[in-house]
Amino acid sequence: MQKLNFASDYVLGAHPAILRALSETNMEPASGYGTDAFCESARKKIRASCCCPEADVWFLSGGTQTNQTVLDALLGPCEGVLCADTGHIGGHEAGAIEFTGHKVIALPHKNGKLTAAAAEGFAKAFYADENHEHMVFPGAVYVSQPTEYGTLYSLRELAALRRVCDTYGMKLYLDGARLAYALGSELNDVTLPDLARLCHAFYIGGTKCGALLGEAVVIPQKGLLPRFFTQMKQHGALLAKGRVLGVQFDTLFTDGLYIRLGVEAVERAKEIQALFLAAGYRELLPRETNQVFLLLEDRQYEALSEKIEMSFWEKPDDTHTAVRLAASWGTAKEDVEALKNAIE
Amino acid sequence: MQKLNFASDYVLGAHPAILRALSETNMEPASGYGTDAFCESARKKIRASCCCPEADVWFLSGGTQTNQTVLDALLGPCEGVLCADTGHIGGHEAGAIEFTGHKVIALPHKNGKLTAAAAEGFAKAFYADENHEHMVFPGAVYVSQPTEYGTLYSLRELAALRRVCDTYGMKLYLDGARLAYALGSELNDVTLPDLARLCHAFYIGGTKCGALLGEAVVIPQKGLLPRFFTQMKQHGALLAKGRVLGVQFDTLFTDGLYIRLGVEAVERAKEIQALFLAAGYRELLPRETNQVFLLLEDRQYEALSEKIEMSFWEKPDDTHTAVRLAASWGTAKEDVEALKNAIE
Amino acid sequence: MQKLNFASDYVLGAHPAILRALSETNMEPASGYGTDAFCESARKKIRASCCCPEADVWFLSGGTQTNQTVLDALLGPCEGVLCADTGHIGGHEAGAIEFTGHKVIALPHKNGKLTAAAAEGFAKAFYADENHEHMVFPGAVYVSQPTEYGTLYSLRELAALRRVCDTYGMKLYLDGARLAYALGSELNDVTLPDLARLCHAFYIGGTKCGALLGEAVVIPQKGLLPRFFTQMKQHGALLAKGRVLGVQFDTLFTDGLYIRLGVEAVERAKEIQALFLAAGYRELLPRETNQVFLLLEDRQYEALSEKIEMSFWEKPDDTHTAVRLAASWGTAKEDVEALKNAIE
Amino acid sequence: MQKLNFASDYVLGAHPAILRALSETNMEPASGYGTDAFCESARKKIRASCCCPEADVWFLSGGTQTNQTVLDALLGPCEGVLCADTGHIGGHEAGAIEFTGHKVIALPHKNGKLTAAAAEGFAKAFYADENHEHMVFPGAVYVSQPTEYGTLYSLRELAALRRVCDTYGMKLYLDGARLAYALGSELNDVTLPDLARLCHAFYIGGTKCGALLGEAVVIPQKGLLPRFFTQMKQHGALLAKGRVLGVQFDTLFTDGLYIRLGVEAVERAKEIQALFLAAGYRELLPRETNQVFLLLEDRQYEALSEKIEMSFWEKPDDTHTAVRLAASWGTAKEDVEALKNAIE
Repeated sequence: MQKLNFASDYVLGAHPAILRALSETNMEPASGYGTDAFCESARKKIRASCCCPEADVWFLSGGTQTNQTVLDALLGPCEGVLCADTGHIGGHEAGAIEFTGHKVIALPHKNGKLTAAAAEGFAKAFYADENHEHMVFPGAVYVSQPTEYGTLYSLRELAALRRVCDTYGMKLYLDGARLAYALGSELNDVTLPDLARLCHAFYIGGTKCGALLGEAVVIPQKGLLPRFFTQMKQHGALLAKGRVLGVQFDTLFTDGLYIRLGVEAVERAKEIQALFLAAGYRELLPRETNQVFLLLEDRQYEALSEKIEMSFWEKPDDTHTAVRLAASWGTAKEDVEALKNAIE
Repeated sequence: MQKLNFASDYVLGAHPAILRALSETNMEPASGYGTDAFCESARKKIRASCCCPEADVWFLSGGTQTNQTVLDALLGPCEGVLCADTGHIGGHEAGAIEFTGHKVIALPHKNGKLTAAAAEGFAKAFYADENHEHMVFPGAVYVSQPTEYGTLYSLRELAALRRVCDTYGMKLYLDGARLAYALGSELNDVTLPDLARLCHAFYIGGTKCGALLGEAVVIPQKGLLPRFFTQMKQHGALLAKGRVLGVQFDTLFTDGLYIRLGVEAVERAKEIQALFLAAGYRELLPRETNQVFLLLEDRQYEALSEKIEMSFWEKPDDTHTAVRLAASWGTAKEDVEALKNAIE
Repeated sequence: MQKLNFASDYVLGAHPAILRALSETNMEPASGYGTDAFCESARKKIRASCCCPEADVWFLSGGTQTNQTVLDALLGPCEGVLCADTGHIGGHEAGAIEFTGHKVIALPHKNGKLTAAAAEGFAKAFYADENHEHMVFPGAVYVSQPTEYGTLYSLRELAALRRVCDTYGMKLYLDGARLAYALGSELNDVTLPDLARLCHAFYIGGTKCGALLGEAVVIPQKGLLPRFFTQMKQHGALLAKGRVLGVQFDTLFTDGLYIRLGVEAVERAKEIQALFLAAGYRELLPRETNQVFLLLEDRQYEALSEKIEMSFWEKPDDTHTAVRLAASWGTAKEDVEALKNAIE
Repeated sequence: MQKLNFASDYVLGAHPAILRALSETNMEPASGYGTDAFCESARKKIRASCCCPEADVWFLSGGTQTNQTVLDALLGPCEGVLCADTGHIGGHEAGAIEFTGHKVIALPHKNGKLTAAAAEGFAKAFYADENHEHMVFPGAVYVSQPTEYGTLYSLRELAALRRVCDTYGMKLYLDGARLAYALGSELNDVTLPDLARLCHAFYIGGTKCGALLGEAVVIPQKGLLPRFFTQMKQHGALLAKGRVLGVQFDTLFTDGLYIRLGVEAVERAKEIQALFLAAGYRELLPRETNQVFLLLEDRQYEALSEKIEMSFWEKPDDTHTAVRLAASWGTAKEDVEALKNAIE
């Protein structure tokens, strides 16, 4: 019998509506490299959702690729990017940012978040240092929404980060790999139009939010990155059959599917959280989106591991193990029911 | 009414068998980053097709990305790659190779091909130059099969290139973006096992050969590139949902689909060629695979353009235009019939 | 007995006035990284010589380093640099430009020069190509004065190149590794103020023109490259003891030494040329500056090689060898006299 | 009246013996790029001093350049370099390491040093992480001797670091920008032969130890970096007039000058330290080599600053300032005497 699988939000294929759309459009000829009508339709819907009719919108294949390509385009010569020391670009992307010549400057996180105070403190000290011209300039701030810990930036926190960016000439970039699950959270107060107002660039994640693959980059200020198309090509990030991404995002932004699937996944995560709390388990930190982090005793970990696929998260001490369970667009009520049976 | 579309071999979606497989496997959980059972199955089938049971096989998203990532991995410090001056990496990939620090050294082509003599001539002169340590070393040879002109390397030509590579310490890399249409050509004498025997690395193209997207890199000598997984990640070329590529290549290598669709597309191209020749048109160079190159008088070009989507290829002189028509897995006999009516 | 040495213009140490200045200033404390008074004085004199009181002036160590650092700063993302196919950056700098991610686009030379027509032809065709966004943009034009063949751009030729640059949004960069010998040539009509008017950046060569080492970059439009100091550091091109370069350029630009030594070296080269022509030897191409290129029969080459150090240049055919003899600031009348005896 | 200048060990020109040697050899012709007899002689003497007759020895211009070029050559794909978070490459070289695509991984320092325990802890945890193939591999360890805080690695500490490197497949690289002052310290127990035995590569600093400029890289295992010459060229680190570096290192390694000038500078530093301690000042940390670090009250700082050039080091709290005073080969007993008068 197959174990229950809560290991991540990308263990399944795609939302059925996406597969359907791919099938229905399959034999319609389309031009390449994102110049097709499907991409154009998706762009329009995304711009509308962001209340940003002028935004440049680009489609890429994956998260690391998107972070690398956008940050390389946003950063000037001798500039690095600030991030929380838990930020995905810092440790878990194989040095993809440094590969393009830019330093990742990691600052201590708070619940997985980079605070405006930390960013400001760094930038202020940097420019106060009389030798700063011998150092890497802070050129951008990287945040993820939700964060790697499933936590959320509030509107106030993001606005404060943007103010710091404006003061010190930095760009604000937001990694929305799991953005649907932020937008779908009952604790969230940051909308797509807010992101379009506050970020120089951000991406709307598809891979972890119902698509087979794909991320949609939004650059609210049209023309901010005038060579971005060619930069995508140069980074190997420009799909020949751009339609594959266009059709998917067009579907995700039709009839509010993107947010709806986020809401449902967060509902499931809330139920999962409730199950574990009711059964006496402890959370590593409070769930805010679609991910539940548990702090297990090692024997609990062993027992649960036999029945449930989870993600090992970290080993905080000799007798405990932290794990992550993720709900997704594909998590059914029955899965939660089965989990209930498994942990009782 | 929509025009007949022969602009390229990637104007449609995917082969129906692929869409079917994606649907059927959609709700089966799978681990990420190419570690899943679909990828493993596809790898086995590809190894078997190549008679190379030990080969490393990796799945990437697109051609430029694959060329960039594999060449960067094959090349040592201060090494560049030789290619025909018609080679895709030289002019049409936005400097993706140079972006990773490696020079592309273009040599005069012959029917779109790099001859062993040209490669050897360059390497010999290079090492004869007493100042060669001030220059970029030739570290690899890039060829495409079929070439950008739809032509084919013969087994003899590839073997000769490999001998030159061995003599001068270069790696032989083959770009198989349209490999199905080489394998499916009546003029081809190079099999997958031949490629596995002669190349240090090559890729089996999916994007232009029936997949939604995806390319399968084959490295016949297991462990030749020990960090390739991490290099894929660092280049932004590692898909989280690797299953999307695994399922597709598993389908393409089940029951000979990959070669079969190549054969059929080449059949269609042959019919298209015959139509044009019968109607008195001239070829730019003789068709060898799925692409037909025509040398049109400008007024012919204008007339045809109204009914048919073709690719502008080049302007050889003031009164002529060269164009390309491509057949693909998705070109039906009816399309050829319609073309016949259109050009009569 | 030591052979007469005309192998290059950097076989000796430094002009005696430079050694003297280094000794005299040796125990004066100075701040680091080019912030010292010697550099400041040299900058003022260079600006005055260029009639460009606002120019940014930077000191680097060598030619390849300077080309790499300046071009990397001038070029935007996805931009490459045009040059004659004889240009030093194309073949003889070990891919230093590509190492920073930029393609070198070599065009056919004419007497070692890139013509405005060739540059314009390329740029025009580039923007006319509907796929140009898939290609490397031409971002700069590289020329050397004198060229690798010792030839000179006329004022008219440089002005035409600048017009092409302005039309197509390219930067004009001039490599002046041997600039003293251009400025000192009787055939030259391009002055330092002309260069400052026509180039976006150029460098005044020290290494081959009397200094122990060092090149002075002039950026006529102040602030054009606002991060250049940090870029120098990042490229490893910022000397801690910047004074070493400052003292030398201060000396070279005191009392017209730089041009004077150029004039004298060109005089010697003219005498060398005359000797060879009188003795019945053939020139590969007519001498214009401090370098004499001879087209020797192989037995002449062997005979001369026993007495004279020359630079092998190329093997134009099976029975001839082309060589280069260079005069420099350090070539004495006695050396020419001795050469006369040697070739008679 | 000029202030006493103890700001750094590179405020003066060169040791008189070096200027003399440059003058004496000035008119002797020499071949370029380090192939000359002066470089060869210097290499022999350095190999002898290191008891390493087979070592490869290369001459470069400056410290950042050397760190960048050697680390880029030592590191494989996807590899980064570990260093103490006080390491020069981490913060003060403008991202020169990242510029070549490699991540700098900073670990907490202890007195300016990276401990073997810290390096081992990182490497062990790295390989224990099941996701480590998604991360930057630790490929080398960077240490400086003396450190940026003037402290010294003991032989035991270096040997322990090498053991960790061997266990985890890392290269040990030592930055000897101020190596003369380590070798000349009464507290040092690490000799040049020790370094040649323990390091995969290290450099003997010239710029801060009596030369006008220049650093000598020693690679004890001949052929470890077979393309290093070309890599120097590609990094813009290969001087045309290599003789300038050869003559200087030949002088520094004749009659023990290099170590002798180190001993004398450390003597002066000891006297400076004694003066300040006697006058009631506090050290930031105990002097070990040629640099004295003081922890001053702000009003002390202001008072001293009027008479003495020092380096501002850091602001540990609101009322104190840390400063650095450096002695060098050029610090005379009279300078110390004058300092004594100044601080009384």
